[in-house]
Amino acid sequence: MRRLHLGAFMRPVSIHTGAWRYPGAARDANFNFPLLKRFIQRLEAAKFDAFFMADHLAVLNMPVAALKRSHTVTSFEPFTLLSALAGATERIGLVATASTTFDEPYHIARRFASLDHISGGRAGWNIVTTANPDAALNFGYDDEIDHDERYARAREFYDVVTGLWDSFADDAFIRDAETGIYFDPAKLRVLDHKGKYLSVRGPLNIARPAQGWPVIVQAGASKAGRALAGATAEVIFAAESSIERAQAFHADIRRRMTENGRDPELLRVLPAAFVVVGDTVEEAKAKRAHLDSLVHYDSGIHSLSGMLGHDVSGYDPDGPLPEIPPTNASQSARERIVELALRENLTIRELAARAGSYSGLAFVGTPQTIADQMQEWLEARASDGFNIMFPWLPGGLDDFVDRVVPELQRRGIFRREYEGSTLRDHLGLPRPANHFFS
Amino acid sequence: MRRLHLGAFMRPVSIHTGAWRYPGAARDANFNFPLLKRFIQRLEAAKFDAFFMADHLAVLNMPVAALKRSHTVTSFEPFTLLSALAGATERIGLVATASTTFDEPYHIARRFASLDHISGGRAGWNIVTTANPDAALNFGYDDEIDHDERYARAREFYDVVTGLWDSFADDAFIRDAETGIYFDPAKLRVLDHKGKYLSVRGPLNIARPAQGWPVIVQAGASKAGRALAGATAEVIFAAESSIERAQAFHADIRRRMTENGRDPELLRVLPAAFVVVGDTVEEAKAKRAHLDSLVHYDSGIHSLSGMLGHDVSGYDPDGPLPEIPPTNASQSARERIVELALRENLTIRELAARAGSYSGLAFVGTPQTIADQMQEWLEARASDGFNIMFPWLPGGLDDFVDRVVPELQRRGIFRREYEGSTLRDHLGLPRPANHFFS
Repeated sequence: MRRLHLGAFMRPVSIHTGAWRYPGAARDANFNFPLLKRFIQRLEAAKFDAFFMADHLAVLNMPVAALKRSHTVTSFEPFTLLSALAGATERIGLVATASTTFDEPYHIARRFASLDHISGGRAGWNIVTTANPDAALNFGYDDEIDHDERYARAREFYDVVTGLWDSFADDAFIRDAETGIYFDPAKLRVLDHKGKYLSVRGPLNIARPAQGWPVIVQAGASKAGRALAGATAEVIFAAESSIERAQAFHADIRRRMTENGRDPELLRVLPAAFVVVGDTVEEAKAKRAHLDSLVHYDSGIHSLSGMLGHDVSGYDPDGPLPEIPPTNASQSARERIVELALRENLTIRELAARAGSYSGLAFVGTPQTIADQMQEWLEARASDGFNIMFPWLPGGLDDFVDRVVPELQRRGIFRREYEGSTLRDHLGLPRPANHFFS
Repeated sequence: MRRLHLGAFMRPVSIHTGAWRYPGAARDANFNFPLLKRFIQRLEAAKFDAFFMADHLAVLNMPVAALKRSHTVTSFEPFTLLSALAGATERIGLVATASTTFDEPYHIARRFASLDHISGGRAGWNIVTTANPDAALNFGYDDEIDHDERYARAREFYDVVTGLWDSFADDAFIRDAETGIYFDPAKLRVLDHKGKYLSVRGPLNIARPAQGWPVIVQAGASKAGRALAGATAEVIFAAESSIERAQAFHADIRRRMTENGRDPELLRVLPAAFVVVGDTVEEAKAKRAHLDSLVHYDSGIHSLSGMLGHDVSGYDPDGPLPEIPPTNASQSARERIVELALRENLTIRELAARAGSYSGLAFVGTPQTIADQMQEWLEARASDGFNIMFPWLPGGLDDFVDRVVPELQRRGIFRREYEGSTLRDHLGLPRPANHFFS
């Protein structure tokens, strides 16, 4: 029987911007390392595949009226956080977000290799190109980097990083005290990369990662993102709103993998899903409505305008969404919002609460209905599991771990014990061959 | 009574290139995280001020005949290593080396802030400008960056990093669930730095570090290094070979601090010192000689030629060092070698072994003679302590911790218990005021 893979898609205080105001929520998890240690240890006890750290390279640009309400302004840096958490855990995977636009491949290759060695083969790299123009201003640029440039650089960046990881053969290190030979120089490769965007000599000054390469993760949402995912990704987490769309999306990625000479079976599709658990479906929906109500209108309307690419703050908050003129904003975000407004018949105020919190794939119900939906996705091969977003912490995480996980295990669609020790083991992905040494 | 401060100046397998061949040495500490965890836990039990990670951004350039004998080709990256070690310790300081030439101030500020929060205020930043031309080739440059440029950029980089650390006032985060205000926007400062080398808007997306600023550490050896140290350093670790020279060196740094409007009392001078312990002075010397003999002549002669800026491989290994024509190499390294050759009457072979291993300040003797020398330096105010380099691991570390530390404690010149919890507490350095908020 196929089984689910589960990641925890984390921001320190939840992905939901109202979460910190929810009764019983940890308001300071973005400062509180011991709390994050407890979260990951609970997830490991529940046999999650991975703990996945989302990231931004700037304080997000929003009007002060919205910004002052946001817990996202402060957050741990992923490498320092995940390395510290590696020391507090034994088996769970550790996925760090790192940018190909605002960092150097030598640093990225080295840090992931180091995290992979330290954690005994549990590292994964969420490749992002960082669209945010505010990030560009923190790294010496005047404006956002052009979208196509970002993706072209990302593709080259991936080649350099994986090439650097392969600097040493797995059996390069002899350490023969008698003869004084530490490693076999025939098993060291100088990369000597000179490309359009990057010039990196190498070799990397660290042994090949425990997993060969850390697991490559990507959202894979936009057209350029799909192309990059087809060439490189082993895990994708972009979430479609229905099983049919998800099936079509994954077929597209798998086709691109084949075109790139890759085995399409070596993809794990783990859509990001927001999960709210209740004793009844109505109670779960009420919890979510309460949570959404904690997003201030000033924050929500700003997010909604951003997603639509059109300022909607002048319209009646309690009226329906009017026809919006075409814009340059992300078409997928815009379409999702317009569709959501129609499907759930939401007012601008309700839409603003969703836009300011979370408007994507969600499972809101009892442990049974949530397990039913997850099983349906799994059986329809619309996904291989999910990256779970908890509505608030620790309560939302506890609900999932204490109530949903046992139901999934009872059905035989989620592991009761880890069977391997690396993230690749958990995901059933093979260790990649070395580019240069067999 | 004044007391010593002690740091452990670490490379994973020792600073000494022959160390991995020494009987009983851990040959694989540069892969073996559990071993490093044991090392730091022993140092913490011995009440060391800090664990200090040296670093390089390249596989060091040397002929293959020397390179293949070097354990330095593989090593953990400092941020991932120290963050993982933070989780395994409670009190000891964690000093990471990070380059101002090949990294971005936003990343550096954020990682140190994150490490400082995760560790409860134990981070320190060893500022390096990375002279190594091989590092430049790994970061898109064709050649070494000019020395003066590197130091000018480092000075500006420090201003940006410390400015970013001060993005939020200490009391910015209100987290009032009732009103929904997470932080007070009047207590957020946008840096908006536009300088000669760097353009960084800010603010940093993490709360001010636990220590205000992590402790600023520098070697401070070269003329430009001294200028930078005078403007910025709180701890310096360049080692002079005698008490008189050390006194003059520190007077110079303190004078520069005064010129920069800084309080010269707020400097801790902790020269790097190589310590070999024996039951007798002769035994300790024999241990060192054995260790040095494990450096292959191919490695040593290459290092010696590098330090002299002149290829000496053609001379008789068992003869004395001939007169060397003037060169562009580092004058301090060259002078140290020439002086060492005269002082200890060493042959080229013996000098090569030192050059290929360690040729600086060393205390080689019994626990008593080592404590005598350390006390003499302390009382002459030639230092405030030392950054200890262990000749091999774990034996050399065990010898120091089990035999020298108790002797220092017995004399009342080293702590028996930590009195504070942060690295600043251990060093007696105050928490810096925020640039922008009082």
